[in-house]
Amino acid sequence: MTPLHTHTLPRLELVSTATLTTVLFKRGFRNVFLQEVRPVNPATARMVGLAFTLRYIPAREDLDGLDAFDDPAHPQRVAVETCPAGHVLVMDSRGDATAASSGNILVTRLMRRGVAGVVTDGGFRDSPEIAAMPFPAFHQRPSAPTNLIRHHAIDIGLPIACGGVSVYPGDVLVGDAEGVVCIPRRIADAVAREAYVQTIYEIWVEERIGAGDSLIGTYPLIDPERRQAYEAWKAAHADRWPLAHD
Amino acid sequence: MTPLHTHTLPRLELVSTATLTTVLFKRGFRNVFLQEVRPVNPATARMVGLAFTLRYIPAREDLDGLDAFDDPAHPQRVAVETCPAGHVLVMDSRGDATAASSGNILVTRLMRRGVAGVVTDGGFRDSPEIAAMPFPAFHQRPSAPTNLIRHHAIDIGLPIACGGVSVYPGDVLVGDAEGVVCIPRRIADAVAREAYVQTIYEIWVEERIGAGDSLIGTYPLIDPERRQAYEAWKAAHADRWPLAHD
Amino acid sequence: MTPLHTHTLPRLELVSTATLTTVLFKRGFRNVFLQEVRPVNPATARMVGLAFTLRYIPAREDLDGLDAFDDPAHPQRVAVETCPAGHVLVMDSRGDATAASSGNILVTRLMRRGVAGVVTDGGFRDSPEIAAMPFPAFHQRPSAPTNLIRHHAIDIGLPIACGGVSVYPGDVLVGDAEGVVCIPRRIADAVAREAYVQTIYEIWVEERIGAGDSLIGTYPLIDPERRQAYEAWKAAHADRWPLAHD
Amino acid sequence: MTPLHTHTLPRLELVSTATLTTVLFKRGFRNVFLQEVRPVNPATARMVGLAFTLRYIPAREDLDGLDAFDDPAHPQRVAVETCPAGHVLVMDSRGDATAASSGNILVTRLMRRGVAGVVTDGGFRDSPEIAAMPFPAFHQRPSAPTNLIRHHAIDIGLPIACGGVSVYPGDVLVGDAEGVVCIPRRIADAVAREAYVQTIYEIWVEERIGAGDSLIGTYPLIDPERRQAYEAWKAAHADRWPLAHD
Amino acid sequence: MTPLHTHTLPRLELVSTATLTTVLFKRGFRNVFLQEVRPVNPATARMVGLAFTLRYIPAREDLDGLDAFDDPAHPQRVAVETCPAGHVLVMDSRGDATAASSGNILVTRLMRRGVAGVVTDGGFRDSPEIAAMPFPAFHQRPSAPTNLIRHHAIDIGLPIACGGVSVYPGDVLVGDAEGVVCIPRRIADAVAREAYVQTIYEIWVEERIGAGDSLIGTYPLIDPERRQAYEAWKAAHADRWPLAHD
Amino acid sequence: MTPLHTHTLPRLELVSTATLTTVLFKRGFRNVFLQEVRPVNPATARMVGLAFTLRYIPAREDLDGLDAFDDPAHPQRVAVETCPAGHVLVMDSRGDATAASSGNILVTRLMRRGVAGVVTDGGFRDSPEIAAMPFPAFHQRPSAPTNLIRHHAIDIGLPIACGGVSVYPGDVLVGDAEGVVCIPRRIADAVAREAYVQTIYEIWVEERIGAGDSLIGTYPLIDPERRQAYEAWKAAHADRWPLAHD
Repeated sequence: MTPLHTHTLPRLELVSTATLTTVLFKRGFRNVFLQEVRPVNPATARMVGLAFTLRYIPAREDLDGLDAFDDPAHPQRVAVETCPAGHVLVMDSRGDATAASSGNILVTRLMRRGVAGVVTDGGFRDSPEIAAMPFPAFHQRPSAPTNLIRHHAIDIGLPIACGGVSVYPGDVLVGDAEGVVCIPRRIADAVAREAYVQTIYEIWVEERIGAGDSLIGTYPLIDPERRQAYEAWKAAHADRWPLAHD
Repeated sequence: MTPLHTHTLPRLELVSTATLTTVLFKRGFRNVFLQEVRPVNPATARMVGLAFTLRYIPAREDLDGLDAFDDPAHPQRVAVETCPAGHVLVMDSRGDATAASSGNILVTRLMRRGVAGVVTDGGFRDSPEIAAMPFPAFHQRPSAPTNLIRHHAIDIGLPIACGGVSVYPGDVLVGDAEGVVCIPRRIADAVAREAYVQTIYEIWVEERIGAGDSLIGTYPLIDPERRQAYEAWKAAHADRWPLAHD
Repeated sequence: MTPLHTHTLPRLELVSTATLTTVLFKRGFRNVFLQEVRPVNPATARMVGLAFTLRYIPAREDLDGLDAFDDPAHPQRVAVETCPAGHVLVMDSRGDATAASSGNILVTRLMRRGVAGVVTDGGFRDSPEIAAMPFPAFHQRPSAPTNLIRHHAIDIGLPIACGGVSVYPGDVLVGDAEGVVCIPRRIADAVAREAYVQTIYEIWVEERIGAGDSLIGTYPLIDPERRQAYEAWKAAHADRWPLAHD
Repeated sequence: MTPLHTHTLPRLELVSTATLTTVLFKRGFRNVFLQEVRPVNPATARMVGLAFTLRYIPAREDLDGLDAFDDPAHPQRVAVETCPAGHVLVMDSRGDATAASSGNILVTRLMRRGVAGVVTDGGFRDSPEIAAMPFPAFHQRPSAPTNLIRHHAIDIGLPIACGGVSVYPGDVLVGDAEGVVCIPRRIADAVAREAYVQTIYEIWVEERIGAGDSLIGTYPLIDPERRQAYEAWKAAHADRWPLAHD
Repeated sequence: MTPLHTHTLPRLELVSTATLTTVLFKRGFRNVFLQEVRPVNPATARMVGLAFTLRYIPAREDLDGLDAFDDPAHPQRVAVETCPAGHVLVMDSRGDATAASSGNILVTRLMRRGVAGVVTDGGFRDSPEIAAMPFPAFHQRPSAPTNLIRHHAIDIGLPIACGGVSVYPGDVLVGDAEGVVCIPRRIADAVAREAYVQTIYEIWVEERIGAGDSLIGTYPLIDPERRQAYEAWKAAHADRWPLAHD
Repeated sequence: MTPLHTHTLPRLELVSTATLTTVLFKRGFRNVFLQEVRPVNPATARMVGLAFTLRYIPAREDLDGLDAFDDPAHPQRVAVETCPAGHVLVMDSRGDATAASSGNILVTRLMRRGVAGVVTDGGFRDSPEIAAMPFPAFHQRPSAPTNLIRHHAIDIGLPIACGGVSVYPGDVLVGDAEGVVCIPRRIADAVAREAYVQTIYEIWVEERIGAGDSLIGTYPLIDPERRQAYEAWKAAHADRWPLAHD
């Protein structure tokens, strides 16, 4: 996997998932927002990191008793102990939140290990405790039942589905209070660059519309006069956008 | 369209959506509450206004590229710039929240133009920013993807479906922290009058039940003795209900 | 029905619904968490009580007019006035939240009567008022429409379905910010005892993982050395667990 | 329960569920067609009979082992052996077809006992065998798993929900290739009478439209000239409608 | 609207909906197959025609009583009487099949008037009668209840949504036993031409695979040697493909 | 993987999926029937074979263009060309039938290669052609759109989810007109043996109930007298059950 540009992850810290979907749409990507995946706590949802995947399949009564947890090679445990710092642990739970994908103890461990966040299209148990952590966590809805009732951790590091979106290991995941976007790895540098600039423009637009300007000529199509005003404003605040140039 | 009684909208400011469904049920209306449509921020959800409608149909790849937004006659842009002050922009998004119905820039513009609120049975993007505005906005759930992925704005000012309810232009929409009720225009005066009185009664009931009275004889059926007490209480607080009489 | 051990309900006050699902799973119970049933207000969701049941079937236009409420023998009214203190009123609403199961006046009355909480797999109306009460209430989502539109209260005190789980009168219901677990009556003493001890262990684990320990050897499988540390910690804090022994 | 007019059930043999919903709609009933309940075999779906009810709640692992079937007082067995001839066994399966409501052996027994049909809003197992019987059976979809996995038969003879419709014991159930309508008992005579006459009219309309007549003046509003033609036709074929008069 | 090439509709008579989705996918169209819309009778599902649209919104009790049908200007009646021969009447029923979109009398009238077919994303009543007609009809599932319970016909000739796909008046609709594809009008000639040729290739492939050939080198990628064989076969059967050339 | 007993697959040819769920339930397995997976043609649904798995994840626009099919290493093509005779190709399509999992050309190739059947929890395109083949195929519903729109074939031979059930390579799949059961490999011999005997008993029961016997004492609990009759009947027809003994 080619390394990312050093500005890519920092740039994405400024960018919303909404802006990212537009930038990706321009490049032909229509399915990048994980559907029905929400922050456990919107106030701590800001997340940027590389995908590290864990796959669940349905549990089976003879394989998924409580003794399953005694196995140190159990993929869920291994995932929690080996997900690299700065990565996001993404779980394919088949959109099934009737039993938990994980609970607060494992999430605490992930946070302690420097992981960037945790995402499932199922549900977390102990969600009130997880909500209280300074750690981005995304799921469908709270789910108290132990994961053995429904989920069997089967493997790590494969491409998976999450929230109806394909997630390949190494893809760049960005989360905010609205949810999570998955950026294909090979275009992450370009997407981050364009989204960063687009964000600057949208901040200016928001100021102008808030001040009473019409949409016409301002957004999304900007007329020449306003473009000049925008460029002047951007230059005047150049210190706010230290990453606007490579 | 016949004008509304001058007290109708002010009366509805006091009334909950729950009370309105009861008053409408008495007149035979069973389907007036927009299903699966929620306030973006329950704290700023109080809304009263007249329906101004926008209809979306599914997007089509050759019609809904990013250049669609360059068209000043694009119905979404026109709707945002022409929805009259005091009206509510209601969008028929076919209950599909997999892409956004609108975002914060357009909602900011609506607020600036004095519009009374915005409603979709799809989802908003930039929902954290929208939640922070002092402006009533209702949707199904946050949805970051750009609306071009799924929604094509097709026309303005027609009767539409929203949340499984028919909304005719000029109907009266009332929103609160529970959701939105649509009152057919031609009965809005009568409904507002009756709901206002019913609200006064329910405030008294809530006081009595809170003080330990039984439901029996108090609510929903009131016995003659309590009716007397209620009428006395209502008279004693007549200044709290300035709109109780035409 | 045999009486419960005097420690059972107090022990359950400490225990989360997540922990209870694990303890019940050990005994072969996989379906004890009410699905799609959430606290109206997570901050006041802690609930322990015995099940008192009310069953709804679909409304019928000739039986469920507004005069239905004039009947003092109406099962909904009777349930609210007769549910014993310390019990939880649980409503089988067939998972249908398109009309309300109940509203704030009835919930206020339940609270005043000393009832322990209220649960439906439908929705409450007046949910903002209910959220403001110091009283545990659980539902699927807010629903303003009067219950007569969809629900006919038919009987009290029978075994019912709620959230896909069977609830027998006298079962022990425990609620927290994640939702509600139903513990079969005949095993409630044993479950409470085991869950109380498991909770102590998990508090210790959470401390250890928070301090940087690995999952391996700590949780869920504990190695002999750590077990010794745990036992020492537990003994040192024995006053925090007054109900650890019968 | 008052006895039905002797012509009521015979009249209903001629009438479609579609026509019945219209006649019931005229009397204010909007919710009489069991939703998502289909004939196992459309060719043998014609059914008329009185409702005999069986209620399931979710199974519980300690109550619903295979030994549950050893109990001769098990409500499912009792229902099958006591449902009166000419009645329809209707099961409230909470719309859950992930496990069977019943299988072919029980359905064979019902048929042998002279029962008029069997209805569930769950699924039947052995559905190919059931489809081959000359016996009306209605369900949501085939479902092989044994009912103990999901359903606990709890009581007989109570009002229930089935397919989102309330069914009271003694109501009149009519089935055809489209599904099942439930007619409230107290209006069954009147509904049967009106629906019988309406059916005669629709047969004539179908002939006229098939012959090339326009809808205008024929259906649903008939003009005076055509009414005369219709009355003449009806009189000329009076022997086809032996039950047209009381 | 520009006229279609004279071969376009005849060519589409040969082509399956599956092949059409592939040809449209090549041109960037991903959403052209009406989801959850099925033939009432797969044996009579073959359909080609131009879209003529009818839009329903939710019914309202004061507007949608039985007297609604007395109005000769009622859009449903007007649609049935004015849909041109060779066109397909497509109804936007919001995917709601809890009440009928239409019944057999109206469908009979459409057939008599030379209409090419009828499509709804709701349900038909009298579906057994409709299934017996030599006429293509597509819906979600049978639905006996009269449409007044849920659907209000509001307008004709506007772009609509059907089965999650946008349908513009004049688009070309093709149906077969799998369902319905909507071809945007402006590319219909080119799509028909390409799909016709693709169909010839697939017939040959099916013969080859049926004779034991491997997929490799045959389909979807064809190797030079097999291409030669294919071209020879096509030339030898040229009379079977009279429309292969403009 | 240990080899199966030589009678196991032949015994399963006699056994229904319904009987198998009961036998598996006795051993503690509750989730073995693939939900929402139906035969394309119930008349050719009888299937017994070993699982060979193919996994799809969501498509991505840059990876899943039409040129994807030009790759001879494409997992879908490899699966079709390498699935061993006597095995069943099972596809994890995430329950998504909005685009096809496969079409008739690939299914024809599977049949020609001696494969035992094909199963997806998505949908097949060209389903009318597939229905006409003497080959067991199971899916959710017909789906014309090309699979590139939604599905990316990612790997072969891993444990997967299908219809909410875990399927491990080498598990035994049995299909009939109701659907598909997955038998864990390590208990397949024992399950086949017991299910074969249970089937014999149920054939006798069906005869007895058809002849007018009561359920009581016959089924599911058999009384001693009837047991004697059953054993005599079984002995008298021993030639019909050649595999009743090892």
